[in-house]
Amino acid sequence: MAEEYDLVVLGGGTGGYVAAVRASQLGLTVAIVEKDKLGGTCLHRGCIPSKALLRSAEVFKVTQEAEQYGVETASPTLNFFKVQERKQSIVDSLHKGVQGLMKKGKIDVYEGYGRILGPSIFSPTAGTISVEYANGDENTMLIPKNVLIATGSKPRTLGMEVDGQLVMTSDEALQMEELPESIMIVGGGVIGIEWASMLSDFGVEVTVLEYSKRILPTEDHEVAKEMTRLMKNKGVNIVTDAKVDPQSLVKENGVKVTAEQNGDNVTYTADRMLISVGRSPNVTNIGLENTDIVVEKDAIATNKFYQTKESHIYAIGDVIGGMQLAHVASHEGITAVEHMADQQPHPLDMNNVPSCIYSSPEVASVGLTEEEAKEQGYTIKVGKFPFKAIGKALVFGESDGFVKIVADEDTDDLLGVHMIGPHVTDMISEAGLAKVLDATPWEIGQTIHPHPTLSEAMGEAALAVEGNQIHG
Amino acid sequence: MAEEYDLVVLGGGTGGYVAAVRASQLGLTVAIVEKDKLGGTCLHRGCIPSKALLRSAEVFKVTQEAEQYGVETASPTLNFFKVQERKQSIVDSLHKGVQGLMKKGKIDVYEGYGRILGPSIFSPTAGTISVEYANGDENTMLIPKNVLIATGSKPRTLGMEVDGQLVMTSDEALQMEELPESIMIVGGGVIGIEWASMLSDFGVEVTVLEYSKRILPTEDHEVAKEMTRLMKNKGVNIVTDAKVDPQSLVKENGVKVTAEQNGDNVTYTADRMLISVGRSPNVTNIGLENTDIVVEKDAIATNKFYQTKESHIYAIGDVIGGMQLAHVASHEGITAVEHMADQQPHPLDMNNVPSCIYSSPEVASVGLTEEEAKEQGYTIKVGKFPFKAIGKALVFGESDGFVKIVADEDTDDLLGVHMIGPHVTDMISEAGLAKVLDATPWEIGQTIHPHPTLSEAMGEAALAVEGNQIHG
Repeated sequence: MAEEYDLVVLGGGTGGYVAAVRASQLGLTVAIVEKDKLGGTCLHRGCIPSKALLRSAEVFKVTQEAEQYGVETASPTLNFFKVQERKQSIVDSLHKGVQGLMKKGKIDVYEGYGRILGPSIFSPTAGTISVEYANGDENTMLIPKNVLIATGSKPRTLGMEVDGQLVMTSDEALQMEELPESIMIVGGGVIGIEWASMLSDFGVEVTVLEYSKRILPTEDHEVAKEMTRLMKNKGVNIVTDAKVDPQSLVKENGVKVTAEQNGDNVTYTADRMLISVGRSPNVTNIGLENTDIVVEKDAIATNKFYQTKESHIYAIGDVIGGMQLAHVASHEGITAVEHMADQQPHPLDMNNVPSCIYSSPEVASVGLTEEEAKEQGYTIKVGKFPFKAIGKALVFGESDGFVKIVADEDTDDLLGVHMIGPHVTDMISEAGLAKVLDATPWEIGQTIHPHPTLSEAMGEAALAVEGNQIHG
Repeated sequence: MAEEYDLVVLGGGTGGYVAAVRASQLGLTVAIVEKDKLGGTCLHRGCIPSKALLRSAEVFKVTQEAEQYGVETASPTLNFFKVQERKQSIVDSLHKGVQGLMKKGKIDVYEGYGRILGPSIFSPTAGTISVEYANGDENTMLIPKNVLIATGSKPRTLGMEVDGQLVMTSDEALQMEELPESIMIVGGGVIGIEWASMLSDFGVEVTVLEYSKRILPTEDHEVAKEMTRLMKNKGVNIVTDAKVDPQSLVKENGVKVTAEQNGDNVTYTADRMLISVGRSPNVTNIGLENTDIVVEKDAIATNKFYQTKESHIYAIGDVIGGMQLAHVASHEGITAVEHMADQQPHPLDMNNVPSCIYSSPEVASVGLTEEEAKEQGYTIKVGKFPFKAIGKALVFGESDGFVKIVADEDTDDLLGVHMIGPHVTDMISEAGLAKVLDATPWEIGQTIHPHPTLSEAMGEAALAVEGNQIHG
């Protein structure tokens, strides 16, 4: 069986299905090939399920602290089975939503494993997709004008064997049936810190082993410092400069591992280990060898419109590396599809891409950190405003953290915005829009931020760039 | 005793003290005259204490619903004494903060009652301020180059006698020592709905009697409709078109009042009554009769830089009417002071002023409603996106509401943004910045909103203006 399409998308994750919807809006005939479930990592093994667990952790914490708000209740206990059940019902509901979008967009979904073929009887150019089914049904051949590779990524493991019980990546951790008493988290980046925060709030004893000199190495140094302080306040053991030796892993009544720290070898033990050391693009076994597509540093190389060396084959999302974020993948997918459809999209500027950490406290940022700006040769000015001087933060009961704005001393351009504190993941979009529209800190400072809201911290930080903040 | 200043501010509320800080930054010598406490209505009888109570109501609700999140605890009880105690400690802490700002800015604070004198031995022009002390100390005379009147407003009562027990305004309600079993709220505007939401969440039986055809008459009609639905879901009895007869008030084992509804007289009873029918500018007994200052419709008339008919006397905030909001007062105060100091400030565009309602769900809006835009002759296009299609809203556990964008069909200009749902009071600032920078819905739609956040609803609503939303 052979079917023709304007576009075949390889991989139905957030990048892939959003691209398919956009293609359908533009009048293209579209198919998605997905070996597992529509929604991919983000929906089933990433963003959504982890945020559902984090929300339960938040409710657990609020309930524990309810008395401070005048609400009296018994000391709460966690029913982790129900926590997981709630998570799953949210995932299922959103999964149905994505399926509905496919129907609405008349997008054909092939539930099988797709591979790219080279030039063949179906097409003189590479790009025919062969869909292989788990039940042994005959392969389907899809003959597209364009292909979009959106095969995503998988967790890196440093070569340690993941058994899903004692040693886990986030994939397995999300499926835990009960909480351990203690855990060591290898890697203090975004995922590691979200898990550290969540598990600590759930009452688990957490140790984070981070290779670099500080956790959250890609965030602004002051944000990382504040997060370190607040994680330590929670009781999380943060160990930096810890070079875990994968060979030293011993599984026996839990896990044991050795890390080199400033020349010394230190042994750590815990009931379980979570490895969160980044994600590796899924470039193998998808037929790239049948094409001229180039893989550089484990990721598919593309131009700014996401064309590979085969100009009718595009690639987006985690499989091309860079900022491996769901909203980057979907934006790239939209750009790629609009380019196929001659819509002249604007290339994405990574300096305008916000990123979020959903720990407690949350972190959100967009643009250059102070260090990056200096490295790039900017003379900078900085405005910083603490949540503890914001009335709504006191009202809310969380007043740690701050908003920090980095601007160009010479041009007044906004270079970066970095937030740590309550609700900042919802507030970073103002900064994102400011970046896109090239707003100056002065313009942000002139914008009325309603009182009493947490967003006043953004207005005050903007005023603080020139020392004109009102409340500090 | 007579003291000379560049500026004397009459009233130390949010508008007054922020203006004083700005004046101090600009190098003016400044005094504030405040008869009660620095921070005024907003800090002591308005925004801050009401939000503190609302936060306790939120925690009470979260704790009641904790089981849904896998958190098991006993059915919570409210310790209203502690709720009030927490509220007071937040107010006290912020009050200290404001006092600290005055010290830092070298702003003299006169704790007395200020009145404007006419031309006298102190000055050939009106504007000398006589400060009268409660303890009978001799008046102080302040001789300023400029005066800023920021005397605020007080609750209207429809002529009903407020005894502070059975019949209250928000002033007294904030001081309640215990909760009534039932309450009737006269007036379904912003304050009425915040109280209805809070008291209902606290378990009080609430009836709202609204004069107009709908609650929240100044909000977009779809927002008001959604709020009506959600308040009714909470169990709040919403009665619209109810013309309460102030003369009919009877206090006897609670309160009884008659309202005319479509020609019929209907009687309502409850344990207590809260009157929330707007606020009246404080223009009496401050010496306006000694000046050429004009009062129109109960409010001081000013030009766009807040100068009264006496060009060296400015007035800002609730006392000049308009949008009686703390952030409007402070922005007006800054503008007035910058004008005094020849800084050429931009006049405020009320279409760029956000407003918020801190009920559950929250409401936030900026710019024209759909109805206002049509009345002003615009041909409009509307983009609307529901929170129920936003993953983070499902994760958070609150997915009612939507974001609605009203744009000009002819020019693509953004006319208004209206939000009802979780965390919208923190998210409206993106829309506020968009208004200030004249962003089009297309630009907002092109801006990457991080996933999974509630702010995605803003991006999707912007795309929906042209029917290009992805998830709906």
